[in-house]
This record gives sequence, structure tokens and C-alpha cells, in this order.
Amino acid sequence: MDTRDLMRGAPPRPKAQVTLANWRDAPFNRWGFRNVRQVLPTARIRRAPRAWDLAAGAEPVDRIAVPGHGTFGDVLAATYTDACVVLHRGRRVFERYDDGMAEDDRHILFSVTKSVAATLAGALVASGALDPDAPVPHYIPEVQGSAYGGATVRHVLDMSVGIRFVEDYTDTTGDFARYREATAWNPVTDPARASDLRTFLLTLKPEGRHGEAFHYVSPNTDLLGWILERASGERFATLLERHLWVPMGAEFEADIAVDRLGAARAAGGLCATARDLARFGQMVLQHGVAEGCQVIPAAWIDDIRANGDAAAWARGSKWMPGGRYRSKWYVLPGARGAFCGIGIHGQWLYLDPAAAIVIAKFSSDPAASADAKDDLHVAAFDAVARTFG
Amino acid sequence: MDTRDLMRGAPPRPKAQVTLANWRDAPFNRWGFRNVRQVLPTARIRRAPRAWDLAAGAEPVDRIAVPGHGTFGDVLAATYTDACVVLHRGRRVFERYDDGMAEDDRHILFSVTKSVAATLAGALVASGALDPDAPVPHYIPEVQGSAYGGATVRHVLDMSVGIRFVEDYTDTTGDFARYREATAWNPVTDPARASDLRTFLLTLKPEGRHGEAFHYVSPNTDLLGWILERASGERFATLLERHLWVPMGAEFEADIAVDRLGAARAAGGLCATARDLARFGQMVLQHGVAEGCQVIPAAWIDDIRANGDAAAWARGSKWMPGGRYRSKWYVLPGARGAFCGIGIHGQWLYLDPAAAIVIAKFSSDPAASADAKDDLHVAAFDAVARTFG
Repeated sequence: MDTRDLMRGAPPRPKAQVTLANWRDAPFNRWGFRNVRQVLPTARIRRAPRAWDLAAGAEPVDRIAVPGHGTFGDVLAATYTDACVVLHRGRRVFERYDDGMAEDDRHILFSVTKSVAATLAGALVASGALDPDAPVPHYIPEVQGSAYGGATVRHVLDMSVGIRFVEDYTDTTGDFARYREATAWNPVTDPARASDLRTFLLTLKPEGRHGEAFHYVSPNTDLLGWILERASGERFATLLERHLWVPMGAEFEADIAVDRLGAARAAGGLCATARDLARFGQMVLQHGVAEGCQVIPAAWIDDIRANGDAAAWARGSKWMPGGRYRSKWYVLPGARGAFCGIGIHGQWLYLDPAAAIVIAKFSSDPAASADAKDDLHVAAFDAVARTFG
Repeated sequence: MDTRDLMRGAPPRPKAQVTLANWRDAPFNRWGFRNVRQVLPTARIRRAPRAWDLAAGAEPVDRIAVPGHGTFGDVLAATYTDACVVLHRGRRVFERYDDGMAEDDRHILFSVTKSVAATLAGALVASGALDPDAPVPHYIPEVQGSAYGGATVRHVLDMSVGIRFVEDYTDTTGDFARYREATAWNPVTDPARASDLRTFLLTLKPEGRHGEAFHYVSPNTDLLGWILERASGERFATLLERHLWVPMGAEFEADIAVDRLGAARAAGGLCATARDLARFGQMVLQHGVAEGCQVIPAAWIDDIRANGDAAAWARGSKWMPGGRYRSKWYVLPGARGAFCGIGIHGQWLYLDPAAAIVIAKFSSDPAASADAKDDLHVAAFDAVARTFG
């Protein structure tokens, strides 16, 4: 099927119907990922009154060779790319939209949302509202007795909470399925059992020691969003708007998925344009500065690049030996200092400080996650970065 | 409770929680009506690249006397007003936002959406895509056997379809409750029975003669939305964007509620800013012209003002004797030529050609509908209009 036929027709043919039951499955995800607000309740994040101007200056980025995989353009074509924006020193040197996506279409970031949420945390640290070393119950007393009762905000930021949870995107009956229903990302199968995100988080049980190993658990980041709300007294969407979207000069509004009680999906529900995601990356690359305005403290960004527990990463991840994970950013091994946010189905925000390169990429890969695909993306982005410096 | 506390807190206190189950009930509607997208799936309607500039020029409109009811300001306060914009000759002479509503907040129009949808129909008539005198099955063959099988588009536009349906906003078990579930405006009580809007429309049965009497049936307008989609091959949100929002110079995006299969709630799901609703009204007042651009054919607007079956109105409505209903606008009796769109819970778009006045008003009245409230609004708007000419 031509995915441009998805949701065409009134009603769309059954095979072209994108619904709450299939929006993350191929080929429906091609429409679902850029129309999340038509499937889920979402909150609005306002744009800046004046956009941060990113000068255009096209370069033949798609012709850059990626050893063993043809060109960068070939990699984009092979990885279900919906949009890709490459900035070099803040100039838009490459911008491509595929499969009918428009430059003002907002695409779901999935777990790149986590990197955004933890960067936002830096703004609350700067204002004194948030202490990353405080115990989680300092902000949310209700977590006593759950996995988070003995954890600190830092454990939550670095994904080293000792918690019993299996992050299995294909699960239909266990923890992850229960999580999906609580977030309202899947249809309610039993209205009497319908939960909400925050209530679900309190049900998660401890397992192992905090701080010991990298353990990727998406609900930890929803919890981070809740912590930010409690620390500030504001809703997550409002925080994103006030501390990131407006001061960084976002050109377009963004959306964030919310549950039945308005809890934002800080772990994966942000939907933004590729250009605004690239802007966010450029601000991070510039140590938190956007157009002369210190949006996020430089110390918070520098901490991400310098720190992160390499031993905890080694204990918890088979992928990317020698890497680290800090404040919900992946820090790659090697002298270039590259770091990135990664979301399932091929969402990326890749920063290479050595070359002053930012790459934002949205995709609709049928598979949620695969190490080989991640390796391919990193190799392709690295090839682009090395070409520029 | 201070309604500004609605949805404050993480989670909000139970009494401050606005959900799919209560968003149209007071006091929850105060938050719900301006945050529909956080409760329901919605589609996006883009704004114009450049907004139609409405010069500001404040006048003491709130001090205008409304015989028997104090001042216009008193009427606004007594009718749960969230926003009110008054234009005189296209100048913003009065603009007020209450209860924390912001000028860029989008508020649900409820049935003022109908007037917008039928005005949009005029654009498709002009392009040759729609014939108002064609039988409905010409566009939607599936309606054969339903109430719409023998009706024309004109019957649908003028609410004179012979149909068995009780428009009872408080109904919890009959036609209207079934309608609410099909549109996904109420929680699903039985996932196995969950329907969609278009399937629901096909279940409505004929009763009486078409064209005989005014019979207000909201689903007729959802059907009009479906007809426009079939006639054009485009989705309703796209049509609104292309034929109204962009050419009329909308300053802000708008949202429209959609059902499980993307069917737009053409009968009541549009959410827009007060200023953009006023712009739409000004365009209609100017015989379809916005900033020199003929957005809607003058003949379509003139037909609304000149025609409409007074006898059909008299047979079907106790309210507003001597009035008419044409293409989903209410045409008031009297020499001033005033006409308006009306939505439940106090939504109004009132046009007085004699004084070149446009009044857009959003409210969160606890009651869906009451003739006395409608009379009060008309009296207040008429008092404002007479002050200006």
C-alpha cells in the first residue's frame, strides 16, 4: 500500500484506517507518528513569538559515503525516514521530508522526549526548584514503598533505579502492556480496570540496588516529568513551553500526549517538527545558549558530556561498549564527544561537538528497536560529522 | 471552587479533575471547553501565513445598557462568559477574556461549528464540487434506507430532514447517548459496542416529510461534513484550512474533534480563538470577502440572509417567532437583518449588518440550552448593535 493513502477517504478503507489499536504498527505508523493528536489527547506547547532563524545553505549531505552502506541518502531511504535536518554551525545544510511529511508536521519523538525532559530538568535545577541529589520522596511522598522510595532524582535521570520492570515493546500481557493501558496509548480493554499513568508508577516494585547498573525503564522518565511538576507547581507542558520552547525560539507549536488525568508522557509523548528538534539540539550543542539567551545552564549540559557512570553502563547494556548514559542522553565512546537522544522506530537527535553538527531524524521503522539499526544510524551520522570536521 | 484550580496539581485533586466523563459539566466545563484537545483526539487546522489585521480601538461596550438586565458587562458576567470580541466596521472595539482564558486559547464553538461548516459548503458550491439541490445519496450512496436516503443537501443545510431523532442533551440512554458514544465525546461503556460517527449516521431512520418543518438534529451537520468530504475528496479539517482558515487570514491554528476513524465533528467540534471566530464573522458580514479576497461567494452569503423557509421555522420552533434558519445560520426577525450562529452552553457569533457589528462570545454556562438565555443574549447583542448604528 502507498502509505499516502492512509486515512484517505471518508471513511478510509479498512486497510487504510489508523486507530488507537494500530497507530504504532507498520504501515499505519507512517501516518500515526505525525498525527498523534488525532489518535490521543494531547496538550499544547506554544511556539516562540519570533523563531530562532537558522540560515539555510544546502550541501550535498545525502551523497556522503557511509562505509558498507552506500551513501547517507541510501541510509535515509533504508531506514524509513520521514524527515531529516542537519545543522552545521547552526546553518541548515540539509533538510529532507519524505512520504508526504511537511516541514510544519509534528512527528512523535518517542524516547528523544526523555533527553528533552532531562534537559528541561536543568532549568529547574538552575532556578533552585530541583535538587538532582534529593530523594524522590522529597518531591513525591507517595512513592514510599514503590521502587522509587529509596531512589534519588539522579538515579531517575541516569536510568539506574533498582526496579522490577521489563521494557518489552512487544509485550501484550505483562508490565509493558499494563503501562500502555495506563498511558492510554492502547485501547482500554476493560473500562473497570482503566488506570492513569501516575497511579501505575506507584505500583512498580524495587529490585536490586539503586545506582548499580544502567537499566532502561521508560516509566522512570514519566516519573521525572511528575517530579518536575511537583518541584515547580506547574504542568509539564507549561514547563516545556516556558523553559524551552519559547526561550529557544521554537518556530512551531509542539504537542505532548497526556493521560486521562493530564499526566504528560515525559518518557515519549512529545511531538515536534524536525526543525525545532534540530534547534533544541543546537541550543544543547551551544552549552545551553540559543541566540544569546542562556536557556539551560552550561554546567548542566557540560555535566552530561563529562559524566555518566561507564561501569553502570557496562553492567546494563550490551550495545555501545565504552559508552555512558547521563541525564537521559547517550554519550558515545571516542574522542569526538558525540552524544545523542534515541527513540524507538528510528527517532534520533545526534550531536557532534567536534564538527559542530546536529542531526535530527524522524522515522517510521516497523521495528521498535534493534541494535544493528542503532549501529547503522551512528555510523551514518558519524560519517556526516567527519565530513564537516 | 475557583475554576482556575481545575487540572492544577499533579495529579489534580479529585474535585479538580476534568476527564472525558465530565468535561461538559459545570464547573469542569470551564477548563474542558478551552482544552478539548487534552480530552479528545483532534485534527489540526493551520493558520494563515499572515493574519488579517483587525485594528484595535477600545470603546466602553461593557457599559452599554441592556434594558432590564443592567449593562452589557453585567450580561457577560451573568452568562459565564469566557471571552467576548466585538468588531465594529472590522475594528476591535471590545475584547475581553475571563477566568484565565488567554487570547490564543481555543474554545469549543459547539454548534457555531455548524454555521462555519455550512459557510464552507459555499466554497465547494462555488468550485462546482457541491450541488446543494442534489440528493444526499449522490454523494453518499450508503445513506439509502436511512433518514437521509430521500433528502437533499438543502434539507440537510436547512435542518428540514424528516428524521426520527430527539436532540436531548441530557439523555443518557437513547439516541443522543448513542450519538455521544459514537463520536467518542463520552467514555466507552462497552468496548464491544463502540461505534464511529459515520456508521452511527447510517442508523438514523426517516420520520415525516423532508422540507416540511425545521427540526434541529445535530447529526445532520456531521452528515454535511461527510458530504463535503465525499464531494471534495479531502478531509474536513483540510477543507476548513484550505477554504476558510488560510484565505480568511486566521491568526491562530484551530482544532477539530475527530472520532475513532478521523470523522470530524462538523456539528460541534471546532475549537478556535475568539478573535478568529470574529474574523470569520467579519468575512461573512463583508459578503464573503476578507482583505480583498473573495473567500466565500457573495451569493452564498446573500442567500443565507435573504432566504430560509419562515413557515418551516414556525412549524418547528417555539423560539424566535418570525425567524428563519438558512444554511445553518439563524436569521432573526426585524429590519436590521441580524443573523447568528448559536452553540450550547453560550457560544455565539452574532452579525448585525445594519450597524456593521460582529460579536463573538464564548461561555461555560452550566446549562446546555434555554430559550430565556438565548433571548437575553439576543437582547444584549441587539443593544450593542443599536448603539453603533
